[in-house]
Amino acid sequence: VVTSPKPIKEEVEFATEPCKVALVGFGTVGRSVARILTSRSSQDLRLTHVVNRNVDRKRVDWVPRDVAWTQSFDDVLNSDIDVVLELVGGLDPAEHWVRRSLESGKSVVTANKQLIARHGPALQKLARENGVHLLFGASVAGGIPVLLGLQEGLGGDRIHRISGILNGTCNYILSQIENAHISFGEALEQAQAKGFAEANASEDIDGYDARAKLTILARTALNADLEPEQVATRGIREVEQIDFAYAHDLGCTIRQISRAEVKDKTLFAGVQPALVPQSSALARVTGSQNVVVSAGEFGGETVFSGHGAGGDPTAVAVVSDLLWLSRNRHNRVTAESKSAADLTISGDFKSAHYVRFKVADKPGILAALANVFSRHEINVDAVLQQAGHSKSALPFVITIEPCRVEKLRKALAEIRSLDFHVAPPVDMPILT
Amino acid sequence: VVTSPKPIKEEVEFATEPCKVALVGFGTVGRSVARILTSRSSQDLRLTHVVNRNVDRKRVDWVPRDVAWTQSFDDVLNSDIDVVLELVGGLDPAEHWVRRSLESGKSVVTANKQLIARHGPALQKLARENGVHLLFGASVAGGIPVLLGLQEGLGGDRIHRISGILNGTCNYILSQIENAHISFGEALEQAQAKGFAEANASEDIDGYDARAKLTILARTALNADLEPEQVATRGIREVEQIDFAYAHDLGCTIRQISRAEVKDKTLFAGVQPALVPQSSALARVTGSQNVVVSAGEFGGETVFSGHGAGGDPTAVAVVSDLLWLSRNRHNRVTAESKSAADLTISGDFKSAHYVRFKVADKPGILAALANVFSRHEINVDAVLQQAGHSKSALPFVITIEPCRVEKLRKALAEIRSLDFHVAPPVDMPILT
Repeated sequence: VVTSPKPIKEEVEFATEPCKVALVGFGTVGRSVARILTSRSSQDLRLTHVVNRNVDRKRVDWVPRDVAWTQSFDDVLNSDIDVVLELVGGLDPAEHWVRRSLESGKSVVTANKQLIARHGPALQKLARENGVHLLFGASVAGGIPVLLGLQEGLGGDRIHRISGILNGTCNYILSQIENAHISFGEALEQAQAKGFAEANASEDIDGYDARAKLTILARTALNADLEPEQVATRGIREVEQIDFAYAHDLGCTIRQISRAEVKDKTLFAGVQPALVPQSSALARVTGSQNVVVSAGEFGGETVFSGHGAGGDPTAVAVVSDLLWLSRNRHNRVTAESKSAADLTISGDFKSAHYVRFKVADKPGILAALANVFSRHEINVDAVLQQAGHSKSALPFVITIEPCRVEKLRKALAEIRSLDFHVAPPVDMPILT
Repeated sequence: VVTSPKPIKEEVEFATEPCKVALVGFGTVGRSVARILTSRSSQDLRLTHVVNRNVDRKRVDWVPRDVAWTQSFDDVLNSDIDVVLELVGGLDPAEHWVRRSLESGKSVVTANKQLIARHGPALQKLARENGVHLLFGASVAGGIPVLLGLQEGLGGDRIHRISGILNGTCNYILSQIENAHISFGEALEQAQAKGFAEANASEDIDGYDARAKLTILARTALNADLEPEQVATRGIREVEQIDFAYAHDLGCTIRQISRAEVKDKTLFAGVQPALVPQSSALARVTGSQNVVVSAGEFGGETVFSGHGAGGDPTAVAVVSDLLWLSRNRHNRVTAESKSAADLTISGDFKSAHYVRFKVADKPGILAALANVFSRHEINVDAVLQQAGHSKSALPFVITIEPCRVEKLRKALAEIRSLDFHVAPPVDMPILT
C-alpha cells in the first residue's frame, strides 16, 4: 500500500502566511478590489502597494495605513510582494509590466482582455518558465466564473461550441432599440449618458471588445490557437427598430452574438448581430448582463450568466483569482500546457439568414432578387413584408435557407448594384 | 527580489505519469465515465480497475484489456492506484469504502450526494489528515460546474443566498402537470415509464434528494454548518393542475425550489414547491434541467444551468474532478479548512404566500377565513377565483402579504378545522 505523505508543519505555516498583493491601476475595478480586500476578515490576502499615475489624487483614507502609495512600478518589482494585480488595461505599459513581474518571479492576476487576447499564450509560457502563475479570470464576462467553469468544471467534456453575449454595452443598446423603440444613435447616446459606453464606443459597438473575449474563451474551451484578427467581426450599427419588428415575427430577437465552433478540423469564429429564438438563453439576457452557453459532447449545453462588467463584479473575479493564488502559490506550476489543436480558422459559418432590404418600391424587385439568389444556388425560405410602410423606403425581409455566409455575401454584392435600394441590404444569421 | 523556484525535471515527470483510477460501481454513470476515459487520447488518466458485485455480468469489451475486473474492494486498496472513484451510491458500504480509501492514502472522487450531505465534513477532515483529496463536484447538479463556480470562481464574493432547481424528476413532473394538463399521479407514472423517476420515487418527489444537494451547496457557498435534517423539506405531491392555472394568473409558475439564505446570523434553508415569476431564471428551467442562482454582496446574481443528471453529464463532472486530481495530486493538501460560520438554522422564511382552498361552497367562507387571518395578524393580499368550477369542490386562492411561514401555518392549522374543506389547504411561498 502506497500512502501519500501527511502535511508537515512547515506547509501549514505556508498556508497561513498572507499573500502580499500590489494593486497596479486604481480606477473603478481597482477601488472595488481594494474595498473587498480591506473588508475581509481573513488574513490570507494583504494589500501592500497601490500604484497609479499622479497617485496623490487617488489616495483614499479607508485602506490600511501601511499600504504604500506610489507612482513607480519599480517600487513593486523591488519589494517582496507575491502578486502583481494589473488593472491598468490596454497594451502599453501593461504588457511590459506584466512581463517584468513574471520575470521577477511574481505571479500576475489581470483583468486585461486586450492583453490576454493579444499575448496570453506567450505570457503564460513566460509564467511557466519562471515558475509563477498568470491568472485572468476577470478578463472575460467579469463576475461570471466562466473561464474556470469551462477549463476545470467541464474539463472532462469535449466542448465543441461556445456562444455568448460578451459585451454589455451592445446588449444594452440593442435592448433599448427593442424595448424603448428608439434608434441606434439615441440608444448609444443613452448608454454614454449612463456611463455604460465610452465616449469612443467603437471598441464595444464594432465588436472588438467581444472578439478579444471570444478569443480567450475559444483558447480555453476549444483549445484553439486563435488570434483576435482571425475572428470575423461585425458591429451593430446597421441594426434598426424595423429589424426587431421582423425578428419578432420570426419568433426571434437580435443580440450581438460571439460564437466559436469546431467542426471537421475547422474552427468557425465570429462576432456579429444575429437573430436568436426568443426562447433561447441568449435572448433572455437583457440590459448589461452577459451569458455564455457551451455545448459539449457528453454534458450537452451548460449556461453561465450574470454581471459581465462593472467594478464590483469584475473585482469579485479578481479577488477569486487572488484567493486561488494564496492557496496554491507554493504549489508546482504545471510545466507543460496542452498544445493547441490543429484547426483551420474560418468565419464562413453555415446558417439560415435574415436579409432586410429597404427599397423604392416598383414592380419586379422580388423577381430581380429571386433571380440573383437562384443563380447563386441560394434557396429563399420566406418573404416578410409588414403593412404600413412608405413605398419610397419600403423595408422587407427575405429569409434564406441554411447556406455559408460567404456564398450569401457574393449574391448580396451583386444585388447591391441593383438600382432600387434606398439603403444597403442588412444580413444577419438566424441561430437555432 | 524574491524569485520562486523554476520547475525542476522531476516535477515535469510527475505531471506526465498517468493518474491510476479504480472505478467502483459500474452502473449508468460508471459506464459513461469508462467510455469517456477510454475515448480520450491523453494519457493523464488510466483506468486500472472496475469493481462491481457479480462483476462478470458487467464486463464490456470496449475497455482496455489490462483493466482488472473484480468484485473485491480489497483488490483496489492493495494496489498502487491513485484515486478511488466511488459510484456505488448510498451510505453502506460507500462510506466504509471511502474511509478506507482515504486512510490508505488514496484520493477519492465521488458523485454520492447522500454520502457527502451526511458525512462530507468528517470525510474531508479525514482526507486532509491523510494528505489526500476528496472531490465531489458531481454530487450536485451533475454536469453543471456549480460547486467549483461558487467555491473558487466566486470565492472573492460574499454569497448570501442560493436558490435552485436541483431535482430533475420533480421539474419534469411539474412541467408535465403544467404543459400536458395531467395529474400529479399521471405525470409521475410517465416519469417512471421514461426512466426519469425510480419505482420508489419518494427520494425525489418528497424532496430528500434536493435537500441533500442543498446541504452540500449551502456548506460550500454559505460556509454553513448544515445537516440535511435541518432543511425544512416538503414534497410536491399536493400540487394540482388548478394551482398552475392560478399561478399563471399571478404571472408565475410552480417549481420545486431549494433555497438557503443568510440573514442576521440565521441560515434559512428549505426545499418545497413555490411560485416563481415566469420571467425568472428559475421558471425557465424545463424538463429535467437544473439551475442554481447565487446572490453575492459584490457580484450580484450569477446563474448556472444545464443538465443536472444523467450518465453522461454526471460523468463529465466526475472526469473533470479526476483531471483536476491528475494535475494537483502531488501538491500539498490545504491543512486547515475554514471553520463554518456561527449561524442559527431555521426554515421560517419570510415571504408572500399562495394558499389554495378547495371547499364545498356556502355563504360566509371568506368571512371565516378573513377572521382567522386577522386574528393572527396576517394580511390578505388578494382573493382569486376562476369561473367554471363545481360549487361542491370549489378551488380558490388567497394570496398573503409577506409574513413568516410559521405564522401562516399556525393560522392554517386553525383554518383546517373549519367544516367547509373538501381538501386541506395547500400553501406555497411566492418568490420574487
